[in-house]
Amino acid sequence: MRKFLNDPKTFVPEFLEGIYLASGGALKYEPKYNLIYRADMPRPDRVSIIQGSGSGHEPAHTMIVGPGMLDAACPGDVFAGPPVEFVTETTKLMATPAGVLYIVNNYTGDRTAWEMAKELMEAEGYKIGYLLVNDDVAVKDSTWTIGRRGVAGNFFVIKAAAAMAAKGGSLEECVRVGQKVISQVRTMGIALSSCTPPVRGTPLFELPDGEMEVGIGIHGEPGRERRKTGTANEIVELLLDAIVPDLPFVAGDEVALMVNGLGGTPISELYLLYGVAHKKLAEKGIGIFRSYVGEYCTSLEMAGAHLSLLKVDDELKELLLAPAQVAYRVF
Amino acid sequence: MRKFLNDPKTFVPEFLEGIYLASGGALKYEPKYNLIYRADMPRPDRVSIIQGSGSGHEPAHTMIVGPGMLDAACPGDVFAGPPVEFVTETTKLMATPAGVLYIVNNYTGDRTAWEMAKELMEAEGYKIGYLLVNDDVAVKDSTWTIGRRGVAGNFFVIKAAAAMAAKGGSLEECVRVGQKVISQVRTMGIALSSCTPPVRGTPLFELPDGEMEVGIGIHGEPGRERRKTGTANEIVELLLDAIVPDLPFVAGDEVALMVNGLGGTPISELYLLYGVAHKKLAEKGIGIFRSYVGEYCTSLEMAGAHLSLLKVDDELKELLLAPAQVAYRVF
Repeated sequence: MRKFLNDPKTFVPEFLEGIYLASGGALKYEPKYNLIYRADMPRPDRVSIIQGSGSGHEPAHTMIVGPGMLDAACPGDVFAGPPVEFVTETTKLMATPAGVLYIVNNYTGDRTAWEMAKELMEAEGYKIGYLLVNDDVAVKDSTWTIGRRGVAGNFFVIKAAAAMAAKGGSLEECVRVGQKVISQVRTMGIALSSCTPPVRGTPLFELPDGEMEVGIGIHGEPGRERRKTGTANEIVELLLDAIVPDLPFVAGDEVALMVNGLGGTPISELYLLYGVAHKKLAEKGIGIFRSYVGEYCTSLEMAGAHLSLLKVDDELKELLLAPAQVAYRVF
Repeated sequence: MRKFLNDPKTFVPEFLEGIYLASGGALKYEPKYNLIYRADMPRPDRVSIIQGSGSGHEPAHTMIVGPGMLDAACPGDVFAGPPVEFVTETTKLMATPAGVLYIVNNYTGDRTAWEMAKELMEAEGYKIGYLLVNDDVAVKDSTWTIGRRGVAGNFFVIKAAAAMAAKGGSLEECVRVGQKVISQVRTMGIALSSCTPPVRGTPLFELPDGEMEVGIGIHGEPGRERRKTGTANEIVELLLDAIVPDLPFVAGDEVALMVNGLGGTPISELYLLYGVAHKKLAEKGIGIFRSYVGEYCTSLEMAGAHLSLLKVDDELKELLLAPAQVAYRVF
């Protein structure tokens, strides 16, 4: 393993402590529940927004806790959903009269934890909202999922719902705009390599140099097919051919276009893919409202990328442009 | 090669075009000189700040062009300094009566181009300032360098000089604060893997799993030694033992602490290293003013990290906190 580690078993709590220490007081950390949360939240008049999926997808979700994004994150171990107790304790800590919004990516482990927690919390009188992200068009059912998987589009759901919460929107309004994003965002990815979870110590799957997994899942789940690697032009074409007809995105639409790196691909290659996608969309008469190029939802050190398209209207544009400030910042 | 490419030979112009297209009009692109520059610059009353080293270190330098950072970047090919003509043409385009500041990392190829350009431009009457970054404490002379190499500390030099330029500072003032950063920043890195330049198609050097190169250069130059990989605690200790006594950084100092990823290391591991470094510095009585965790200067997809410490005073603190907006943004 080519990794910076002390002990594979303490990988998650150690990087969470790093996030906490790097935040300069903006975040708090509760090791008992893998819980990273805003030091200035909750506020009684505001909806709190929380998420907790498996670790290994950083910066999602623990590094995007901050004003304008998540209020708290309580991840499980690498590629494992959090225990129900993490969710209920996080809920109690962040609860406000305005309510708590759960944003969940569609994996059976995550859903089990969050839906059980929702039931328990509502029985105790808490007001809970729920959004299920399922933007991956690659496959319908998968290794750990019934229905479509939730992947990089999750970023846009959080961004829109959190911007609505920040301007004082009700729980119902946060759910409405989050649901609008979910209904208008589509994603597919390609892997050029596997990745190695620290405790496992060996690659999740074998992928020979020169082959690619088309429609890869973020935990290494199989996609649509394995085939010989193509050029960047061919790969973008392949992804757009799956994504564009799915919504469908049509001439005259405006979109947010994301090229998300899976962890091991340099940002230069992501920008190269962006340029290709931008021009191919322009040829189809689809306009780019805003670009997102970088790592948003990774699979440890996997080489690969997602392409995400979100169709935007005036409301979503305003929410995407709203200010946000997270632990994981460039400046 | 596990890379997104069309043709290795067009890798650089293709990702530059992607940066340009992703900028939404904020940047311009001149393919003839690999030149990315701010659409709203130059301004007659303002110093322009430019850089151009080898490609393959992204986001440095082409993705940090924008208000509060570089005004233009004109990189060479992967790991190759730009031709003199790129520099002279960039200088002419960005020249103002206030002057143009060159920020150069200490590699012989880069210095040759920029020092020759400086001479040519000054002979034509242009006002040129010059900063040479050499923050790497690993080795004194190296494969492509006389003296110490310039690495991740370059980010802080640009940030401080550009903040001074943005508030109307003279060329002399920009040089002064840049020089202050150079005199107070120290860096060293560790590689856990090699990397593969697209045109070359094979790894730059061989590094077996389980070994690390201590004091690696950003073009794969040898460092101080090769040894068996240690724990994160041991690695941070090793880096701090080289960096801290070099300035020296002493109890009572305040620093900016950067953990820079070399391209293939997940940000979770970088935060893990950050947490270890933060605590070890606290034990020495050294306070952290601000944290920088992520990719600032990479070597394609190399697995590895740099640790950088910059000693800050009130002036540098203010410059580091000044606003900046670059193509490579998370939001």
